[in-house]
Amino acid sequence: MSVTFGDRATDLSRPMPRTDAVQPPPLVEPRATLVPATEVAGRVAGLQAGLSARGLEAAVIVQNADLYYFSGTVQRSFLYVPAVGEATLFVRKLAERARLETPLAGIVELGSPRDLPGLVAERCGALPRRVGLELDVLPVVEYRRFEKLFPEAVFEDVGDDIVRQRAVKSAWEVERIRAAAAIAVEVCELVPGILREGLTEAEFAGLVEAEARRLGHEGIIRMRAFNQEMFYGQLLTGVSGTAASYLDTPLAGTGFSPAVAQGVSFKPIRRGDHVVFDLVAVREGYIADFTRIFALGELPGELRRAYEAALRIEAAVVAAARPGVTCRALYELAVAAAADEGLAASFMGHGAGQVRFIGHGVGLELDELPVLTTSDLELAEGMVFALEPKFVLPGLGAIGVENTWLVSATGLSLVTEAPEHIRQVG
Amino acid sequence: MSVTFGDRATDLSRPMPRTDAVQPPPLVEPRATLVPATEVAGRVAGLQAGLSARGLEAAVIVQNADLYYFSGTVQRSFLYVPAVGEATLFVRKLAERARLETPLAGIVELGSPRDLPGLVAERCGALPRRVGLELDVLPVVEYRRFEKLFPEAVFEDVGDDIVRQRAVKSAWEVERIRAAAAIAVEVCELVPGILREGLTEAEFAGLVEAEARRLGHEGIIRMRAFNQEMFYGQLLTGVSGTAASYLDTPLAGTGFSPAVAQGVSFKPIRRGDHVVFDLVAVREGYIADFTRIFALGELPGELRRAYEAALRIEAAVVAAARPGVTCRALYELAVAAAADEGLAASFMGHGAGQVRFIGHGVGLELDELPVLTTSDLELAEGMVFALEPKFVLPGLGAIGVENTWLVSATGLSLVTEAPEHIRQVG
Repeated sequence: MSVTFGDRATDLSRPMPRTDAVQPPPLVEPRATLVPATEVAGRVAGLQAGLSARGLEAAVIVQNADLYYFSGTVQRSFLYVPAVGEATLFVRKLAERARLETPLAGIVELGSPRDLPGLVAERCGALPRRVGLELDVLPVVEYRRFEKLFPEAVFEDVGDDIVRQRAVKSAWEVERIRAAAAIAVEVCELVPGILREGLTEAEFAGLVEAEARRLGHEGIIRMRAFNQEMFYGQLLTGVSGTAASYLDTPLAGTGFSPAVAQGVSFKPIRRGDHVVFDLVAVREGYIADFTRIFALGELPGELRRAYEAALRIEAAVVAAARPGVTCRALYELAVAAAADEGLAASFMGHGAGQVRFIGHGVGLELDELPVLTTSDLELAEGMVFALEPKFVLPGLGAIGVENTWLVSATGLSLVTEAPEHIRQVG
Repeated sequence: MSVTFGDRATDLSRPMPRTDAVQPPPLVEPRATLVPATEVAGRVAGLQAGLSARGLEAAVIVQNADLYYFSGTVQRSFLYVPAVGEATLFVRKLAERARLETPLAGIVELGSPRDLPGLVAERCGALPRRVGLELDVLPVVEYRRFEKLFPEAVFEDVGDDIVRQRAVKSAWEVERIRAAAAIAVEVCELVPGILREGLTEAEFAGLVEAEARRLGHEGIIRMRAFNQEMFYGQLLTGVSGTAASYLDTPLAGTGFSPAVAQGVSFKPIRRGDHVVFDLVAVREGYIADFTRIFALGELPGELRRAYEAALRIEAAVVAAARPGVTCRALYELAVAAAADEGLAASFMGHGAGQVRFIGHGVGLELDELPVLTTSDLELAEGMVFALEPKFVLPGLGAIGVENTWLVSATGLSLVTEAPEHIRQVG
């Protein structure tokens, strides 16, 4: 596929060729993929249809993940999307980089946010009276700046609309999620060569994360919900997997201190421990979520049985999932299956640490739709989610499986392709 | 020092002893330091004094870094601080962990946020009419939930007060920042054994980050400003250091893709490249920021001269800094010194990538006060900031030095103790 990208023609079907004889350009990694013009045009049109349907005259997009989605570039900027007409990216920092990255034609340098209304009026005629903002993520102080800039305007939340729009992925986006999944799977294959008795969880995590970095893991894992934070997922061993936290996750770990209160610790990995290899991979902004289990020695029968139950629950959910099925139906099916296994009390956490979902959408953020909980949202073709039936057995540890799945026309298609059996190491 | 911590006496002067024969407790890392009761009491009293001075009856604290600061624990919770009286932590998830971590006596389990007003009234008498919230970080949708919960209340922003309070560190906090600094310095000492020609930036970063993890780097780097994101700092080589971004930093790197647009790339490290080792270390929630330079072979004279200028600018700022001096005075001194060096155009970035500060406070967040910019804020004893005179020379790379400093009674005291000379590797 060849699309016109600004004033250059770029072949986007594969990474740009490396020309090692030439210094890389200073602003864009040579192997980076740029978001195709057709993608951005379709996404902006989707947002505009929603604005028109709600009687909103425009939206102003400011949050990083949403900026990337609708413009293909993350700058300190305001993306002004009128309900009808061309979107404009008003850039405070860095217009030069925006021009290299976005297929949008309308890039306007912005000296100060104070200039925004004047520039909008200049480009779009009258100032909008009904404006959509991402009120689910926009801090109040920032919102009040918008109120001052556009004193005649009424603002409405479009965060929810954007989240629903972003839940359905294009084929191009699914390719990116597959690239993230490939990192998770490839690093997982390296675990038997890394894991050994005597390493601390921290040492093990560092070595695993280094492999992910080598493969292009981008590090920053974006989450939309206020106060939710994630660092590479949860690489937890033995009883560490039983530590729950503020996070909306079935397992969290102790972390190194109460300040972070999740993730790995200085606990040494010992014979008899197992590893919950829960890795969140990010490539070109897109996330895949993936969990496999490794055992150093013999796994207690109770954990092994719980793992087998997790696989059965996964299979049951996968068999039932297809477009039109509600999240609630899948969640209730899984909860009932866990009860049938006699493991209701430890399913998706234990006690107050138990969470009320079995999966979550992934994309540019880790906490996307669909959330497989008591929700009436129906699965739709193109949705991508992580399904993670897991158990937390106090005193023993956490165990379970997690795959990222694409909703196809007839069911689910596996994105994180890797064997599911528990692997013995050492 | 021994303080009563809930119902246990804990020696907080050193990490808790490891008892390797015993399984670690599942909820708190055995070597973790808990925030002493005296710290929390002093911080809450400081907030309360500010509330009283402004005529606010209470504050409700919800953001992770602020929760940790005022309670010693990060839970999904509301910390209710009346202007007079005892603070109460209303915990949705996870009260059990909160009780282990916080020295606050008032821990109340909260089934739903809807129960908050009733529980506050029960514990504190009448509902407050004037309430402080962290409006600088609280999303509008969350804020509107508070408006519904407390329909009689007027809300005011206390984010700015909290940021100012947190700018001045206790001796206990400075110890934590020193522990973070120790990670940065120790990893820096390992660079000559890691860095070699042919590694990609990504491979090099992974190996460096693995060492930091081994030493207890907590991974998550909190930033307060909307949309600002950071992953370990910037480990950039050669011309990569010239890539600016949306970040409010003098250098950013290309990153792997426009989706993240900062940090390392797949660029191979070559003879003649230099490494900007800019590592943000986090230990027990506290941050130290640190930059040193390594050269693989001969560094171009222009970069070397710029580095020497950076050291002179650093020395001049350090000589002038003491309590009572404004941030503006230090910033202008540095800008004038860069101009005297003939390097004004490349100081703190180049062109549109240039930023207008030379340093920033560090603590539980990377972007704390004082910001060394055109601000009238005066330095005060106990403030801790990173001073980072850096230059970006197009076509050559970025170079500079960064140390974390403590404002003492008479001047500045170095936190990141390490030699400043450029180190030749290979």
